[in-house]
Amino acid sequence: LFMSSGLEAAGSDTDILLMTGILGESVTFPLNIEEPEQVINIAWNSETSVAFVTPGDPGTAPKVTVTHQNYNDRINVSRQNYNLEISELRMEDSGIYKADINMKTLETTVTTTRRYNLQVYRRLGKPKITQSLMTSVNSTCNVTLTCSVEKEEKNVTYRWSPLGEEGNVIRIFQTPDNQELTYTCTAWNPVSNSSDSISALQLC
Amino acid sequence: LFMSSGLEAAGSDTDILLMTGILGESVTFPLNIEEPEQVINIAWNSETSVAFVTPGDPGTAPKVTVTHQNYNDRINVSRQNYNLEISELRMEDSGIYKADINMKTLETTVTTTRRYNLQVYRRLGKPKITQSLMTSVNSTCNVTLTCSVEKEEKNVTYRWSPLGEEGNVIRIFQTPDNQELTYTCTAWNPVSNSSDSISALQLC
Repeated sequence: LFMSSGLEAAGSDTDILLMTGILGESVTFPLNIEEPEQVINIAWNSETSVAFVTPGDPGTAPKVTVTHQNYNDRINVSRQNYNLEISELRMEDSGIYKADINMKTLETTVTTTRRYNLQVYRRLGKPKITQSLMTSVNSTCNVTLTCSVEKEEKNVTYRWSPLGEEGNVIRIFQTPDNQELTYTCTAWNPVSNSSDSISALQLC
Repeated sequence: LFMSSGLEAAGSDTDILLMTGILGESVTFPLNIEEPEQVINIAWNSETSVAFVTPGDPGTAPKVTVTHQNYNDRINVSRQNYNLEISELRMEDSGIYKADINMKTLETTVTTTRRYNLQVYRRLGKPKITQSLMTSVNSTCNVTLTCSVEKEEKNVTYRWSPLGEEGNVIRIFQTPDNQELTYTCTAWNPVSNSSDSISALQLC
């Protein structure tokens, strides 16, 4: 039954496709429709409704109606496969999206549902390393380095090289032997990474 | 802003209207649109999408597209006020329904959302009283009466008259003095009630 509805065999009707988007940029939800000529209409919904799509006349673009003001002027539908694109992504676009795809069969219409979990992230700005809590004993100095991005974001990971440590705070025991070192902090989130470095010479 | 969108001032945008439906019958969701001529389209959704409605040409009925097979041949939209009717109600139609109403304003379209919580109940069949656990001491007999409807339903209340007790099981101490009595059990749910009676003469 599933294959005969003209949709790709891979993936069950209840699977959720995980998707990441970048604030201000675009994301495209893939529908994987194998027989676009059987499509009667597609209803897109999230927390609110999103759009209602019907095929255009042969050779013309699909007809797209935005059904909630949150998506005014931000929706595009591809001519060939009806994939939905949301542009100028906002943080609050994050959430579950569903497409109810209605297709022709011999007697009636059959609905297949596609589900997506979209998470929108900011492109991380350059992190900044700050140092504090210096104490010097026997020409060894004890420094705490803190790495931070401008706004506190969800899902940010910090890694330090060459130490290989995770977390945004590290403690360093700096001896005269390792003055050549450079400490680099890289902040990662699912859509970007960015680094800042500090030379051991700048410490203590 | 709210009043200027052409929708009734009563009720905020996040209110949920509680509605009950009867299995196999119809329910109509009231939209309370004050200026139907400003409507651009209405997207109805529940767990799945439900329908997409656009005004027809002046003097004609609105154009209704069912967007999920669950609602095939069960949707009607009233010509004047766009209220949505679902017929042949099923138990699984219970749930939250939302209408995103898009209306014209000077520059853009504004979306107002109406929310409904529909609960579908079966019309209760006639309950049946059964008796058990009879013991007779000194011409007083001790009977337990159990009142039950055919299928166990949600939200069923049982009341006994003339005793005024609730619950589907009662215990009676029957003496020769009250042989004239009739015990009636009434089963209630939010959409119906139905009764069965037993005469005291039939007990013991």
